[in-house]
Amino acid sequence: MSTSSLEFDQWLQLRITETESVLNTVLPLAEQAPQRLHEAMRYAVLGGGKRVRASLVYAAGEAALQGKPMAAAQEKALGLAAAAVELIHAYSLVHDDLPCMDDDQLRRGMPTVHVQYGEACAMLTGDALQPLAFSALAQMPVAPALVVQAMGLLARAAGSLGMAGGQAIDCDSVGKSLSQTELQTMHSLKTGAMLEASILIGGIVAGASSSVRQGLQHYADAVGLAFQVADDILDVTADTKTLGKTAGKDAADNKPTYVSIMGLEGSRNLLQELAQNAALAIRPIGASGLRLKQLAEYIVDRDR
Amino acid sequence: MSTSSLEFDQWLQLRITETESVLNTVLPLAEQAPQRLHEAMRYAVLGGGKRVRASLVYAAGEAALQGKPMAAAQEKALGLAAAAVELIHAYSLVHDDLPCMDDDQLRRGMPTVHVQYGEACAMLTGDALQPLAFSALAQMPVAPALVVQAMGLLARAAGSLGMAGGQAIDCDSVGKSLSQTELQTMHSLKTGAMLEASILIGGIVAGASSSVRQGLQHYADAVGLAFQVADDILDVTADTKTLGKTAGKDAADNKPTYVSIMGLEGSRNLLQELAQNAALAIRPIGASGLRLKQLAEYIVDRDR
Repeated sequence: MSTSSLEFDQWLQLRITETESVLNTVLPLAEQAPQRLHEAMRYAVLGGGKRVRASLVYAAGEAALQGKPMAAAQEKALGLAAAAVELIHAYSLVHDDLPCMDDDQLRRGMPTVHVQYGEACAMLTGDALQPLAFSALAQMPVAPALVVQAMGLLARAAGSLGMAGGQAIDCDSVGKSLSQTELQTMHSLKTGAMLEASILIGGIVAGASSSVRQGLQHYADAVGLAFQVADDILDVTADTKTLGKTAGKDAADNKPTYVSIMGLEGSRNLLQELAQNAALAIRPIGASGLRLKQLAEYIVDRDR
Repeated sequence: MSTSSLEFDQWLQLRITETESVLNTVLPLAEQAPQRLHEAMRYAVLGGGKRVRASLVYAAGEAALQGKPMAAAQEKALGLAAAAVELIHAYSLVHDDLPCMDDDQLRRGMPTVHVQYGEACAMLTGDALQPLAFSALAQMPVAPALVVQAMGLLARAAGSLGMAGGQAIDCDSVGKSLSQTELQTMHSLKTGAMLEASILIGGIVAGASSSVRQGLQHYADAVGLAFQVADDILDVTADTKTLGKTAGKDAADNKPTYVSIMGLEGSRNLLQELAQNAALAIRPIGASGLRLKQLAEYIVDRDR
């Protein structure tokens, strides 16, 4: 299906709907044993969310095609890849919210998984969502060599040199003051690694050329950082209702953020600069980079 | 290298040493940032263990070769697969030991990870070990289609329809009385799924024929169950020092076990029956099934 004529909002909604549909298929039914675990997994994953990572997978896939029509197998593979990155993201939120981590009660305006299902079940929910992501990738109907590349990328991005590693630095840094460089390292792992993986996996699955991959890499560097800066700004400017999670939590927890280090004005300037870098990075990709460009603007301008 | 002339003890020691060596290479150095997380990951994985799963990978790989010499690439791939199943096993132990689960203080005679590093770090340690297993598989130098098969199997075995699912049933069943069938379902997921995956992945990586794969599947069914029955017997017959973990814990926690349902004598009889089933299952595989046969005996007769 050609989606190039759609307005950005329509395109985004279409890709979100497709992702939800694949997630719904990939997740075991709540009626299937062990029921309680499967119910909790569905609660954690299907409870809304912006699906930014999934949208990046699709946008990068479209960019990689360079105007060629998307084959049905590629469309299906991108859907599974989009589901995979959302499953990893969902698991990370469940574990982050646990009492031994951020001890958060509210997520997307709903009780967090451990509040709803208990701590042990919440931990197992996260533990089971993670391999489900790899199961989804294993089902992609594209060349096995591409599947292996995508799996290797996802595994690295989720692990100690990516998201989990960033989380570990975050843990160690509570109550400490970090320099901007240290803060950037932490975020580039904690949030940036999975955003980057989403972008690169989308490109790989759709058979990106090496020059497109290079553009995607530079775009990912800028967007990964922009996402976190925008998040830090929202933590101080938005209210809990709009965010769907507790606003002002970072400041209350004495966690270092871009705003605490650079101030609100400085953070906003950095954000605009990163948005420009993202746009520059995909210029060589040409017209098929449209959705990537629009997603970068969306990430910078979002209000939640 | 031909290992067929070695006594079983020597063969087992060789495969354990090889596995430790691959694990040591696959795990990031403790000096690499985030240091505390990497230190905890190494503590969790390299602290000994029987390496039964790793040995099953190698034994199934040797069986699949049907007497042909093992190529260097296959040897390397089996080592990475052996490391992968041990990484998943190690992560599951770290999470099982947490206060919200079994709340265990002792593992392999040493303080558990959360006792040593704190709860948050222990959770992240498990979270980071899991994707490292998939990274290891992604590095296997065999046909990508085989890698994808192995990854799909591992993901399923670790997830809600395998190990994590069994754990979730276990959680729900504390204080309840389970029938033997229910108990068997729980264990076939909790322990059996990963033992089965180890055996099948070893066969796949070494290019097992479909008839060998079938033999491996039947062998896995028997050995997976035998392992748990032996564990339950040891929980009541061995002491804490020999086990390296708290003995009598299942009874104290009021957890259903084979011994609590069938008695000690009944459990021992079942164990012998399962050992015979395992031996029968691999008879069609012939002489190259030697290590599988010996491993089944070892699993049945072990004292820890």
